[in-house]
Amino acid sequence: MAFVNTPAFKSFKPTPESIPPPNAVLKLSVPPGIPVHIHPLNPLTFLLRASQIYPDKLALSAPEGPNPAFYSYAVWCVTQRVQNFAYALKKVGIKPGETVAVIAPNCPMIADALQGGLAARVILCPINTRLQHHEVEYILEHSQTRLILIDHEYLHLIKGTKIPFIVSNDTGRVGGDPYEVFLSEGRRFSRERGWEGLDVEGDENQGCLLCYTSGTTGRPKGVLTTLRGSYLAAIGNASDARMSSSSIYLWLLPMFHAAGWTYPWAITFCLASQITLRTVDFTKIWKHFLGSGVSCYCAAPTVQIGIINDPAARKPPQRISAIIAGAAPTAHLIGSLEKVGIEPVHVYGLTETYGPFTRSYTHPSWATMSLEERSKKMARQGHAFSTAAEVRVKQEKEEEEEGEERLVDVPKDGKTMGEIVTRGNLVMREYFRDPEATAKAFRGGYFRSGDLAVWYPDGAVAIMDRSKDIIISGGENASSLAIEQELASHPHVLEVSVVARSHPKWGERPMAFVTLHPQHVAKWRGEKGEKEFGEDLKKHARKRLPGFACPEWVRVVGELPKTSTGKILKTELRKVVAKL
Amino acid sequence: MAFVNTPAFKSFKPTPESIPPPNAVLKLSVPPGIPVHIHPLNPLTFLLRASQIYPDKLALSAPEGPNPAFYSYAVWCVTQRVQNFAYALKKVGIKPGETVAVIAPNCPMIADALQGGLAARVILCPINTRLQHHEVEYILEHSQTRLILIDHEYLHLIKGTKIPFIVSNDTGRVGGDPYEVFLSEGRRFSRERGWEGLDVEGDENQGCLLCYTSGTTGRPKGVLTTLRGSYLAAIGNASDARMSSSSIYLWLLPMFHAAGWTYPWAITFCLASQITLRTVDFTKIWKHFLGSGVSCYCAAPTVQIGIINDPAARKPPQRISAIIAGAAPTAHLIGSLEKVGIEPVHVYGLTETYGPFTRSYTHPSWATMSLEERSKKMARQGHAFSTAAEVRVKQEKEEEEEGEERLVDVPKDGKTMGEIVTRGNLVMREYFRDPEATAKAFRGGYFRSGDLAVWYPDGAVAIMDRSKDIIISGGENASSLAIEQELASHPHVLEVSVVARSHPKWGERPMAFVTLHPQHVAKWRGEKGEKEFGEDLKKHARKRLPGFACPEWVRVVGELPKTSTGKILKTELRKVVAKL
Repeated sequence: MAFVNTPAFKSFKPTPESIPPPNAVLKLSVPPGIPVHIHPLNPLTFLLRASQIYPDKLALSAPEGPNPAFYSYAVWCVTQRVQNFAYALKKVGIKPGETVAVIAPNCPMIADALQGGLAARVILCPINTRLQHHEVEYILEHSQTRLILIDHEYLHLIKGTKIPFIVSNDTGRVGGDPYEVFLSEGRRFSRERGWEGLDVEGDENQGCLLCYTSGTTGRPKGVLTTLRGSYLAAIGNASDARMSSSSIYLWLLPMFHAAGWTYPWAITFCLASQITLRTVDFTKIWKHFLGSGVSCYCAAPTVQIGIINDPAARKPPQRISAIIAGAAPTAHLIGSLEKVGIEPVHVYGLTETYGPFTRSYTHPSWATMSLEERSKKMARQGHAFSTAAEVRVKQEKEEEEEGEERLVDVPKDGKTMGEIVTRGNLVMREYFRDPEATAKAFRGGYFRSGDLAVWYPDGAVAIMDRSKDIIISGGENASSLAIEQELASHPHVLEVSVVARSHPKWGERPMAFVTLHPQHVAKWRGEKGEKEFGEDLKKHARKRLPGFACPEWVRVVGELPKTSTGKILKTELRKVVAKL
Repeated sequence: MAFVNTPAFKSFKPTPESIPPPNAVLKLSVPPGIPVHIHPLNPLTFLLRASQIYPDKLALSAPEGPNPAFYSYAVWCVTQRVQNFAYALKKVGIKPGETVAVIAPNCPMIADALQGGLAARVILCPINTRLQHHEVEYILEHSQTRLILIDHEYLHLIKGTKIPFIVSNDTGRVGGDPYEVFLSEGRRFSRERGWEGLDVEGDENQGCLLCYTSGTTGRPKGVLTTLRGSYLAAIGNASDARMSSSSIYLWLLPMFHAAGWTYPWAITFCLASQITLRTVDFTKIWKHFLGSGVSCYCAAPTVQIGIINDPAARKPPQRISAIIAGAAPTAHLIGSLEKVGIEPVHVYGLTETYGPFTRSYTHPSWATMSLEERSKKMARQGHAFSTAAEVRVKQEKEEEEEGEERLVDVPKDGKTMGEIVTRGNLVMREYFRDPEATAKAFRGGYFRSGDLAVWYPDGAVAIMDRSKDIIISGGENASSLAIEQELASHPHVLEVSVVARSHPKWGERPMAFVTLHPQHVAKWRGEKGEKEFGEDLKKHARKRLPGFACPEWVRVVGELPKTSTGKILKTELRKVVAKL
């Protein structure tokens, strides 16, 4: 709890009204008809409990920027924010089950909304801030949003909307900040009915969050999660990140991305503290790694690369767990993280599975392996979380008698490719207002990830590719991920992405797009340098890959196109290839 | 995972048949009608997952005795025990929902039963081995037991029974051990249908365990728990004991006691290892503390006192968490545990709440307190677990208009006494075949613990007494627990128990029964010595307690009467008092 004692927290004085009443009841009312031995699962209960156990502990902070904010659990939960948020929604007439959108970077407003939305029993729809105006417009319409909470920097995304909206200037002060006024009006409206004036949702399978996937083709789809699933996913994440009440979580992953993988509730489940940053700023990240006791963060490999390459990088006094998803970590990345005392944890999931639902569980026998060998083990997507029912690799087989397709397990041989499927409490309820897409995603009685994988004898699954990313080279299936994994082991490669390019003889052949480590850029500069580097990389590849999987073309670029969450946009690379 | 590499584990060779088939499917079949996004909560899923992630890790061991046994997760779960247990029950005609009793000390059979019973969807009824023959007879009849699994040492408890039974000689070898033959017949009966040949229970609110409370008055009552409750209680325990995959749990708490507080599943949730001992033997306990990497155990204060007073006691190389319940730990106990590097964790619960459901959460501000001050904080029962819905202290108030009683919170003043009540997923479903007792326990919409407590301004609850243990001295309510807490701070007192004794003037007055620390016994020997000690203790009490709470009589005894789980039997002390 070191962070609570920092001067910044101590100097932040809550207003007198923000001192919780001495006999505040920190529970929602239980509607009649629920038996004594059942409580509907609801991740909001973790915040209420944390506020009872550690009212004066740092719950949420936004330490950077002109108006730093630091909220203790009591102030955040009871007096200044979350409870008021729920009453403020009631006051403006939002009813349980209706949709409220939030468009914001990581900041107190979106953190409030992810708790207070549950208290008001609304469906919260966090929207990706990197989308275009027309995409946001589509989501607002499709989600049937009744109210928008919007950060002042993103007003252009809702220009012309007819839906009521409330702007946050992210000041934490009522003067001149409409969102803060909204919260304080919620407080007045509650007339101190407090938490007991709000009902817990009686049906734990009710909708909780509505997160739109950034569909690479077609319209974005609205992933509707449940209270039960969010509760159990948060427990799975807390347990697999080994978080505890001494943890301090730093927000780099956007909270709008699959509800921050349910970490908002994993943190309160553990009675831990959270720090928000509006942007991924490596100087600020290292400031908090070294000075604020950060013990855990989540980020895609591209962000992790930025972290280890920052000039401030050095071993912090405490252990830090880096939860990595979005792509498998390379040997180079794992080695670099470990060098500065950061323990990499590789997880895998999708918006449809509440974020991560599998993890690469390390085995003691790995300790004696070389870094490269160990990274190959760690790059696998592994096994299901404790609260996820199962993860399997399946193929569709035609039934001889009935002509119907059914799913069968692939052999655990590390070779036969199938599709990763899962079922159970860590699967979304449905695609909102899209029964056809839901039925398609659930065909065969499992949620179909669309990720192609193999299954190893030790039960670990390993992604080979997205169905659409596979390269069919001379009739062979070449996994673009497997090729990238090998090319990334070239000591000069910073990041690499491989896509199919049509080839007169082989049908398709791999083309690699590469960025170089800053200290090696000079060596391969110019047309001649790039050609020489290409030859060097191909030689590197031929030692490690079958001929059909070796890149036929190599292009060195300054930067790879990425989504807001750091995933490389292969669709953009394919556009480049199409013009060649 | 050091323990797996000990010579004892390595020298234990599973039979060739015990090597799991390479493509073994470690999942139960899901009955039709369950949606893709829901899996009925079932704590057995933790074992199946652990066996997939760490098949070769030590799962269960019984290292002492003539036939040491060491089972890896794969061997325990798949080939030799748990799966076979389920099929063996099917083979002898036991149907889902029927009751199977187990009477055994901590050993592989009861560990198998607590997992395999769930796989066969039976209600498992673990019976306390310290009961009398007629009590066991009553429980077998009331629980409608169809089959008894019994350890060879306890055959006298079922003498003359007409219910079929199977004896375990606890050898782990088929030759001459009927229970082991039963398991291997289960394997033959399965014809390798494996785990997929068994269905998961579709209703998570179905009965799971039936544990009879050792009623101090009247017939024992059968506490029926659910699969959902057991799943969530196990997560609460795992999280509050800070267990992880590197944990090694030592069984001192009997598994028959409230299903070992759901630790059998908390351990598999964490992918941890467990060691069983048939008896609480302090020499063996220290052998495993010092040599087997034990990181966690549960026990009542009386057992903890035996541990710290053992001559072998010294600081083990690893951190150990001691989970303490049954009575509050004294300052002396806390100090002694900390001296040998054992971290005390004080929890509270009842069989009706799946064992512990509250914990005393330490606060950083305690670090600067004196041991005595800190112990007083730690002795409180604290706050609810993450998966328990709520813990409150309530009083019955008569409604003026309706003349009906209802429950209201007591003020959080640390003074006003009320009853500890709770509700939610960590409350039993019912008393089996006793709707009247169930209704009584649930009156007012909460489970009524019968424990009298106060509520502190920081939200922690603290037990003052069992309703029946309160001493009414001169019209004042004197808490026997509070008196014991203060008397235990006398440096010569090892253990103390206080009961009411009738008094001509005051109605009742406290009488203390005391055992002394071995090194101080000589000083107070004889009638004169005892009298002098009594005066010394009363003087000690008067400095700390109001007059009405000071003991009027003190008796030094060699030993206090206790239950099998280490709780002091006040009923026996009252019998002594009645004769005075």
